Amino acid sequence: MPDALATWIDGCRADSLPLPDRGLDYGDGLFETLLAVNGRIPLRDLHFDRLRSGLAALHFPPLNDTVARHLDAALATLDAKGNYSIRVTVTRGSAPRGYAPPADPEARIVLSAQPMAYDPMTMQRPARVGVSKVSWGKQPALAGVKHLNRLEQVLAARERDVADWDEALMLDQAGALISVTAGNLFLLSGATLLTPVLEDCGIAGTRRRFLIERAADLGLNVRETSLSLDDLKAADEAFYCNSLIGLRSIGEFGGLQWPKQPVCTQLFDHYCKELAA
Amino acid sequence: MPDALATWIDGCRADSLPLPDRGLDYGDGLFETLLAVNGRIPLRDLHFDRLRSGLAALHFPPLNDTVARHLDAALATLDAKGNYSIRVTVTRGSAPRGYAPPADPEARIVLSAQPMAYDPMTMQRPARVGVSKVSWGKQPALAGVKHLNRLEQVLAARERDVADWDEALMLDQAGALISVTAGNLFLLSGATLLTPVLEDCGIAGTRRRFLIERAADLGLNVRETSLSLDDLKAADEAFYCNSLIGLRSIGEFGGLQWPKQPVCTQLFDHYCKELAA
Repeated sequence: MPDALATWIDGCRADSLPLPDRGLDYGDGLFETLLAVNGRIPLRDLHFDRLRSGLAALHFPPLNDTVARHLDAALATLDAKGNYSIRVTVTRGSAPRGYAPPADPEARIVLSAQPMAYDPMTMQRPARVGVSKVSWGKQPALAGVKHLNRLEQVLAARERDVADWDEALMLDQAGALISVTAGNLFLLSGATLLTPVLEDCGIAGTRRRFLIERAADLGLNVRETSLSLDDLKAADEAFYCNSLIGLRSIGEFGGLQWPKQPVCTQLFDHYCKELAA
Repeated sequence: MPDALATWIDGCRADSLPLPDRGLDYGDGLFETLLAVNGRIPLRDLHFDRLRSGLAALHFPPLNDTVARHLDAALATLDAKGNYSIRVTVTRGSAPRGYAPPADPEARIVLSAQPMAYDPMTMQRPARVGVSKVSWGKQPALAGVKHLNRLEQVLAARERDVADWDEALMLDQAGALISVTAGNLFLLSGATLLTPVLEDCGIAGTRRRFLIERAADLGLNVRETSLSLDDLKAADEAFYCNSLIGLRSIGEFGGLQWPKQPVCTQLFDHYCKELAA
């Protein structure tokens, strides 16, 4: 249990959000998408680190301890042998109307859990990707943060579905490669992994950070840099990553094909050890 | 009645939002802030025009007729002699997890009403403004649309409150003047009103549109153009506008003062005739 979606608000099972809520009104909040494997959250610290940075960026009070407590209580109700996707949403709660946050916000923590529809330890087939016409806006004040303002990705994901791609590449307004709609990008060039700098836009993913910190285990260097579609075309391998799928290689883009992705497969296996730890 | 905040969801009184909701999860939706005066919504058509454009920009189905019906039902419960601020929020409703909108969304309409805390027919004293460090990101796909992704304004409004300004000017990433946190900007130069172009960011306000369409009633020209802080400093008068306050003149900025604002006052009087119509 639960078979379907279960939701909690501030630690209690609840299926509706008290109104008004600044998360709904302005997207004034943050979220994390966690994978639970056998009752455990792999890379849990990376999620909580990002949450801490996001709370600071939005001038929320520290909330990690409260979120951790609610998360543990929810985990305890789930099947210890199941795999779940868990979403933690933190909003600035109720407040009088107006954009300005209240001086003393009462944050609200919304948690939801749902059984995984696929096995996170099995790598998905290589993806066919296209380029979205919707580019990330430049916003240094929010870059990297997993906040609730996600319309750019919503529009790009719609475009992806209409075009029947597996994923859509998203550029910035200057045409640099940033991400896919739901994941960070990596290109392999020789023994170096290249991944876009996220100073002006994009989300700093936990799996991205895992790869940056742990690629050396496989003898790989990592470099955060500015990348273009031409860099993708010239790459030996390419893949994207997020907390639910892990890593997925790019098999086809712009008439090019990458039939073999040995390093991506190695990295996925390495990542799976972390899931099973 | 009601004295405080009253909320409706899909036409029924309700004080909580069913979960999940894409409005909360991704800011996947739109809103309108309406002023009700004596049971009537001034410039109602302009609000509904903008809502229609916003729904199209986000690829929602048309919903104006449903929103109008819910709005009228709510208005009928309010004191016909009172002034209210009413917020209409439209979200893409519940859907399976993921950024991509469902092919057949069931939109949700959240409505809230609250008595006005001040008289919308009385112009507020001239505002003291500063410049926010948070600039609008460039996003042509969403420019002008009053969607639910409003963190830039939340951060700028916080900065305004911390600095104890009446309002904060917001620039774009290139330094052009765009808006205040909660309103559109106009500068007066001779007999011409200048207002920022909103092709790349900002919200196309209903009062902005009223002024563009009706300034000629007072013998004024209007020009949408690129503006800078220097243009503001050189302006004969300056003001901002939104649906709740109407127009408010800028009395002080960057060491400069505008003690008299005769044209702004004339425009406010003209606008009040529309409120009382």
